[in-house]
Amino acid sequence: MRVKIKPKKGVVLLSGGMDSVTTLYLAKSKGYKLSAIIFDYSQRHKKEIECAKEIALLNGVEYYVEKISLSWARSSLIDKNVRVPSNRSLNEKSVPVTYVSGRNIIFLSYAFSLAESINAKSVFIGAHIQDYSGYPDCRPEFLKKFETAVRCGLVSKKIKISAPLLRKSKKDIIKLGLRLGVPFEMTWSCYNGLRRPCGKCDSCRFRIKAFNDLCVKDPTSK
Amino acid sequence: MRVKIKPKKGVVLLSGGMDSVTTLYLAKSKGYKLSAIIFDYSQRHKKEIECAKEIALLNGVEYYVEKISLSWARSSLIDKNVRVPSNRSLNEKSVPVTYVSGRNIIFLSYAFSLAESINAKSVFIGAHIQDYSGYPDCRPEFLKKFETAVRCGLVSKKIKISAPLLRKSKKDIIKLGLRLGVPFEMTWSCYNGLRRPCGKCDSCRFRIKAFNDLCVKDPTSK
Repeated sequence: MRVKIKPKKGVVLLSGGMDSVTTLYLAKSKGYKLSAIIFDYSQRHKKEIECAKEIALLNGVEYYVEKISLSWARSSLIDKNVRVPSNRSLNEKSVPVTYVSGRNIIFLSYAFSLAESINAKSVFIGAHIQDYSGYPDCRPEFLKKFETAVRCGLVSKKIKISAPLLRKSKKDIIKLGLRLGVPFEMTWSCYNGLRRPCGKCDSCRFRIKAFNDLCVKDPTSK
Repeated sequence: MRVKIKPKKGVVLLSGGMDSVTTLYLAKSKGYKLSAIIFDYSQRHKKEIECAKEIALLNGVEYYVEKISLSWARSSLIDKNVRVPSNRSLNEKSVPVTYVSGRNIIFLSYAFSLAESINAKSVFIGAHIQDYSGYPDCRPEFLKKFETAVRCGLVSKKIKISAPLLRKSKKDIIKLGLRLGVPFEMTWSCYNGLRRPCGKCDSCRFRIKAFNDLCVKDPTSK
């Protein structure tokens, strides 16, 4: 008798950037049947949303685009009057102007709601070490406490947060992505939404440096 | 010299029901300058949203109506194919079909994001004892853990959840509301969105019983 094993279900927060896309590929490689949530939170540009959708389609992952308004947030990722930064050091500890108050808290809340509704056991998020120097909602202790709190507030008590890139550097993430076959040319990291990545904002700079350190050409660079 | 004291700021989750409205009046009586968040989450009807807006306007409280889609949630409050319940006992411990997975988790996440952005120190929520028998996200231990987690994920470390009705019965809430001058005729509790409250759904039944126990006429009843 052949026993059909039901695949494990997971929810992945998908932004279209290389971190969340690598996380999706990693979860998929571990056998998860994934549902993705893509957020449209009035970002400066819609480019990353389009990239996220294409990645989901390419991988046969069902996705939800959730439009949320954070009209009160004063972040350069939302407010076009605040300039995107281009001179941050990797070891900088202060909160960057790209910080959107409570962003991951809201994103994870949606993810847990979806996870409980479809009976998924894991919520995947691409948060990592170089983020949590500046973004408090990328810290391991936040993720742990949030998981504990939310389990208490849901009927399902076993949904866990999986942040497989948490302690990896950008360089390690690219190495992992290359091994998993991540189509980096389809990912978008730039804070600006021009035709091609600007190469100058902090997000581009960190990405370029990581590719350079690996002596690999970033397929999105000029 | 006259010193101008800045009022304390607070964020209140406002549904238009008697619990959240009483919470708003209580917070106001304690001197808070409030901002309200009203959620449009594809409820069966928009009646409570209209009530919430009117209450905010009446009190000079600025408000945000946040449209959120929880298309995956199978709750009778969203899915019109699921009948609203009308026979629940007050002591029932099971999760009701009106449960929306992660609803308060999402609502509170938005509230904390707004609170941090406007420098408010308290997030007010009208959760109470008769809810938390069935809704896990109304439990005191959830609220406590969520506050701890979210403080860790924000830059501000001192925003607290205030749930002043938590241990009150519906009857006590009405008593408090009457003392505070809550215009109960402007609140909406019915799960159905007819011209007047149906008087039969669980939400109506619990409200009617509480008013009757106090020998007070509910101004919204026929």
